[in-house]
Amino acid sequence: MIARTKPKATKRIEIRLAGSGGQGLITAGVILAEAAALHEGRNAVQTQSYGPEARGGASKAEVIISDGPIHFPKAQRLDVLLAMTQEASDLYYHDLKYEGILLIDSDLVTSPPTSAALGVPITRMVRDELGRELFANIAALGVLVGATGVVGEKALQAALLARVPKGTEAVNKKAFALGLKAGRAAARVEDAGTEFAED
Amino acid sequence: MIARTKPKATKRIEIRLAGSGGQGLITAGVILAEAAALHEGRNAVQTQSYGPEARGGASKAEVIISDGPIHFPKAQRLDVLLAMTQEASDLYYHDLKYEGILLIDSDLVTSPPTSAALGVPITRMVRDELGRELFANIAALGVLVGATGVVGEKALQAALLARVPKGTEAVNKKAFALGLKAGRAAARVEDAGTEFAED
Repeated sequence: MIARTKPKATKRIEIRLAGSGGQGLITAGVILAEAAALHEGRNAVQTQSYGPEARGGASKAEVIISDGPIHFPKAQRLDVLLAMTQEASDLYYHDLKYEGILLIDSDLVTSPPTSAALGVPITRMVRDELGRELFANIAALGVLVGATGVVGEKALQAALLARVPKGTEAVNKKAFALGLKAGRAAARVEDAGTEFAED
Repeated sequence: MIARTKPKATKRIEIRLAGSGGQGLITAGVILAEAAALHEGRNAVQTQSYGPEARGGASKAEVIISDGPIHFPKAQRLDVLLAMTQEASDLYYHDLKYEGILLIDSDLVTSPPTSAALGVPITRMVRDELGRELFANIAALGVLVGATGVVGEKALQAALLARVPKGTEAVNKKAFALGLKAGRAAARVEDAGTEFAED
């Protein structure tokens, strides 16, 4: 994971959001898939697999985005992994492509598996700025969009506002904006620190 | 679809919930999968695929439940299809196994593809009894559990209460109970009308 390249919108992109139950990652996965499919005209498949690890409290949501048909709906080599717990980072890092992007909540993943991980203290940031951790999943989507560009900011925000309960639009927009800014900043720092900088 | 048999819990069961966006079928799919996986110790995969039909307003959620590993996460021959629109019924009926169960909202699917469809006026029932259509997806889960037994009633209710917003537990339980009762009644009528009655 030395050369970080932003996934091209024209190919199949595999994303996994992983952490623990209660972090809202399934909702985040649905919003991400709907951003791509309903607001960018791409195809998307969104999946959660529940096995023994789910009964242990782990949670993961996968999103596959493609401009073409998606024949196999299971993620196999991830382009992007968002890890919201140390366990998720340890367990799924090996599923990431060599050039894939690892995003972590840097407070919750204290031992990242690579120095190339892009870290944002997502949960703490949301708690400090919005007073509750409840919107960490939406901030995480902001980080993901800001750092990777797998879907457009406007598409994500449109999908977000179509999904959240009435009356919570403003706080969800704020959580998303917080994450977006932090994700962009994290990606800039990473770009500046490698010889593969893109901008 | 003449002989209706209840799917056995020991085999792979494929369920599709299909209708239109806004009917809450993705939430229903997640709750169904979590009932099986988190409260009955089975494995489950829950998927939504978004293509051109999703951009046209259609929505579908799939759940695969198995006591063994789930190697292929895509539904191919449905054991149960819940159709909440005429379009969903027309489009997906051919994906149902010969012995599969078709559940329909009998107000919204006015031309069922088979006389063996189990019909409950789910949306109207919820509107009449609870004053809003918002909980039709939860009543639909009740119908599905009552008519097919693919997961247990207690497991479904536990998964439901873990997922719904605080403060809405009572109305969600009521919607589920309404559906459960109607689903059981619909299955009894169907059993009585065929020579393959099971009870």
